[in-house]
Amino acid sequence: MKLKAIAIASALAVAGTAWAATTRDEPIQPIQPAQVTNPALVELGKKLYFDPRLSRSGFISCNSCHNLSMGGSDNLKTSIGDKWQQGPINSPTVLNSSLAVAQFWDGRAADLKEQAGGPIANPGEMAFTHDLAVGTLRTIPGYVAEFKSVFGSADINIDKITQAIAAFEETLVTPNSPFDAWLKGDDKALNDRELAGYGLFKESGCVACHNGPAAGGTSFQKMGLFEPYKTNNPAEGRAGVTGKDEDRMNFKVPTLRNVELTYPYFHDGEAATLEQAVELMGRLQLGRKYSEQEISDIVAFLKTLTGDQPTFVMPILPPSSNATPKPNPWQ
Amino acid sequence: MKLKAIAIASALAVAGTAWAATTRDEPIQPIQPAQVTNPALVELGKKLYFDPRLSRSGFISCNSCHNLSMGGSDNLKTSIGDKWQQGPINSPTVLNSSLAVAQFWDGRAADLKEQAGGPIANPGEMAFTHDLAVGTLRTIPGYVAEFKSVFGSADINIDKITQAIAAFEETLVTPNSPFDAWLKGDDKALNDRELAGYGLFKESGCVACHNGPAAGGTSFQKMGLFEPYKTNNPAEGRAGVTGKDEDRMNFKVPTLRNVELTYPYFHDGEAATLEQAVELMGRLQLGRKYSEQEISDIVAFLKTLTGDQPTFVMPILPPSSNATPKPNPWQ
Repeated sequence: MKLKAIAIASALAVAGTAWAATTRDEPIQPIQPAQVTNPALVELGKKLYFDPRLSRSGFISCNSCHNLSMGGSDNLKTSIGDKWQQGPINSPTVLNSSLAVAQFWDGRAADLKEQAGGPIANPGEMAFTHDLAVGTLRTIPGYVAEFKSVFGSADINIDKITQAIAAFEETLVTPNSPFDAWLKGDDKALNDRELAGYGLFKESGCVACHNGPAAGGTSFQKMGLFEPYKTNNPAEGRAGVTGKDEDRMNFKVPTLRNVELTYPYFHDGEAATLEQAVELMGRLQLGRKYSEQEISDIVAFLKTLTGDQPTFVMPILPPSSNATPKPNPWQ
Repeated sequence: MKLKAIAIASALAVAGTAWAATTRDEPIQPIQPAQVTNPALVELGKKLYFDPRLSRSGFISCNSCHNLSMGGSDNLKTSIGDKWQQGPINSPTVLNSSLAVAQFWDGRAADLKEQAGGPIANPGEMAFTHDLAVGTLRTIPGYVAEFKSVFGSADINIDKITQAIAAFEETLVTPNSPFDAWLKGDDKALNDRELAGYGLFKESGCVACHNGPAAGGTSFQKMGLFEPYKTNNPAEGRAGVTGKDEDRMNFKVPTLRNVELTYPYFHDGEAATLEQAVELMGRLQLGRKYSEQEISDIVAFLKTLTGDQPTFVMPILPPSSNATPKPNPWQ
């Protein structure tokens, strides 16, 4: 049996797209590996993602709050911004964010490119302006050369900067989780507890929102359906974008991919553990009180959603020139 | 001629250690590549180097101020510490720091292992305690397993933590700079201006302090020999360690390796550019007023000291467990 399984696996591996045909018919689908069509653009985007010179202080980069060593998040309730400001909301993971219907908890950015410009200019985050960020990069000869090589023109603007960052972020997918192996036909990839947890996850209704390849990210939903969600966090969710009262407390459903790594949970980061998050989701969103055993099983399943973390060489940033403005974090 | 040079280079490359025999007899010697004897220890150290859970806030790691994307420094005058505190001194590069006679600007740590424990417990930097840092790591199953695998025992303590960080830092050397290629016999590695700059660097006395493989790092010297150094920075240097008045304003001579990347300069970070630093060093340390051309030539030489930056895969940190204390950066 084992040999046969290996033979089938090999045949499928060779066939490539044949995997899709054998994927189980489930509400969650496997994460596909990144398809890099423009590696030079991705490489430039990686540098920019790690470059704190896009912030006023010269200290905060995209990676500060979406740390790729830590599940693409910062593992804090809410993020630390310029001058140690307390951020208003939990930093969502950048991993698999290309699969989301929109960006930010309230979906105010249509895509990753639009999102990337947000924190740079947000006074509570990187606290720069697009003009100052662009002006800074234009004084860095290594960037001027790289933008020219990538875009065919040495002009640097915010559109190119965010396009490059988005191209890098699109590569930050996490295929090959145990759950994906199971989806693709490997019966041994999940143990009985994990399977029981997944069964419960489906039958009790979690999949209504947490579906698709990212197990979430595809819709906005009210936080607190059966009971109101109690929080001191003033975020109102989607209503801030649409202006509609019925969108109050509507937030983008977060992806559950790599959820083991992206603690703490919810838009306010108030759930410290997966157990707390599952218990509260069951009660508030499904009107169901899970037993300890049920919570434990669902958590076991959730941990099978941890996939291969993006593997890449740490970028080396081009040095500033004498013309580069000198950041003063305390000004 | 060109073919012959290549043939010789190939022969030497094959011979390996034969390079040493052909190295020019100069006061600066080539950087040797890192010799990794315990890769598992280095890998653990790399994780710890990037882990902000060694700080009170959960936000600051070794890499925050010794950023390996930015010449092993933060490119700020002085560093940002816990709660955005303004640091007292410029963050020295971690690159080639294993070659230094001691660590910190005042040499208060004998070696990298001793140094690594400093910022963790410094209230103005990572603002944790060794006990709390150790306690945090002990709740992280991935670390428990890795310490056991590396050290043969699962017990985690500050001694092992700093030993691992130091082992990683010892790999952060930057061989193969253009200057090293020239030292090893490649006449074409430096152009006329760079050679003129090096000649001036030697003949005017810079090499008295900036010598050895790191072009510095081997002695403490008074900042301001011919004229007192004027600064608002209250750091007194070596006197803080020895208690001797004659050690006031004695600082460790910084390495000039990768100096193009480690701006701004001096212990107070007050020299924004290499030109300013060279002009001031000439005047204050050598009693010499360099011409603009001389400064330009010396700067051209200094830029040939930029070597291969450490290339490594960004580490993936083991996730916290439910037992891990939750950081609150604003407490």
